[in-house]
Amino acid sequence: MAVTETLTAERILAATEEVLRRYGPAKATVVDVARALGVSHGSVYRHFRTKAALREAVTERWLERTFVPLAPFVEGSGPADERLTGWLTALFDLKRTKAGGDPELMATFKVLIGENSAVVDRHEERLVEQIARILADGHRAGVFAAPETDFRTTARAVFDATDRFHNPAHAAEWAGPDADAAFAAVVALVRRALRA
Amino acid sequence: MAVTETLTAERILAATEEVLRRYGPAKATVVDVARALGVSHGSVYRHFRTKAALREAVTERWLERTFVPLAPFVEGSGPADERLTGWLTALFDLKRTKAGGDPELMATFKVLIGENSAVVDRHEERLVEQIARILADGHRAGVFAAPETDFRTTARAVFDATDRFHNPAHAAEWAGPDADAAFAAVVALVRRALRA
Repeated sequence: MAVTETLTAERILAATEEVLRRYGPAKATVVDVARALGVSHGSVYRHFRTKAALREAVTERWLERTFVPLAPFVEGSGPADERLTGWLTALFDLKRTKAGGDPELMATFKVLIGENSAVVDRHEERLVEQIARILADGHRAGVFAAPETDFRTTARAVFDATDRFHNPAHAAEWAGPDADAAFAAVVALVRRALRA
Repeated sequence: MAVTETLTAERILAATEEVLRRYGPAKATVVDVARALGVSHGSVYRHFRTKAALREAVTERWLERTFVPLAPFVEGSGPADERLTGWLTALFDLKRTKAGGDPELMATFKVLIGENSAVVDRHEERLVEQIARILADGHRAGVFAAPETDFRTTARAVFDATDRFHNPAHAAEWAGPDADAAFAAVVALVRRALRA
């Protein structure tokens, strides 16, 4: 059955994520992925030339999902300060749900993220750009003050100041009883720093 | 020679730190510590009743050193906003120097910190209290606005917002080319949030 379906990059990536999750990133091989799909490993290599390229693409695909719950706050039409709070809260919720929901997958992606720092850097750049866009909207609307240097620098500072609430290195702290209050206090600090 | 010196807790702790650093926290034993001091392990146990108590005390002693370079900014008489920047910069510099200067010792204390979370919590509480004190001074002097709830909550938010620049989980990022600019941008954001 599986053999007759068209072997797309997306199917390979979905299977690879599941194989990585099941065997762990140290043991999972391209042969395991091919077996899970019922194809030869040569077929997998026609889409991804190396194991490293395949793992990088899986990492990108996983990070890409981050943007789905954030989009309404970037595109949204509400007041920019509330959109920023919404965006930061959605990011924290997403990361926390990921961390709490599937520890094997989270452990896998911690390893992949360590291997693919360029992918992570590009991903963070895009997140920072989204914050910068909300800041610029808010400045136009008179909600946020002018940035001290530029929106990009301030956006990066907002991203870094909330690092404890989205960086997987802190995942173990997110289930703690103080996590929500700590998050709210940092968001309040950030909003106060930005207001016009 | 060593045997004739008085066996103080401080001598045991200094020797333990060196033994942990040399053998690693997984292998170091109380017998190793006793051997390094030229005493029986019973003599060590008279000061520290368990291996865990000894490791906890070493962790406390290591964290205690943090306060030395911070003290001038807590007690200082300069403007509170500059004292806060000085305090945050001194903490970042200290952690960065520790992380860069002696990787074995840093790796050792990462393990000890994981084992002794109550010690770390108390340590963080004291750091947050120092920030709260600077905030209260600054509010009295008209440099900082009144806190939204209380100085303690705002101080914790400042501590959390600068986490990337003092939490050992981020040590690998501190040598990067952007670390200083990123730190300066977060400190600027924090100062803007606090100003009267």
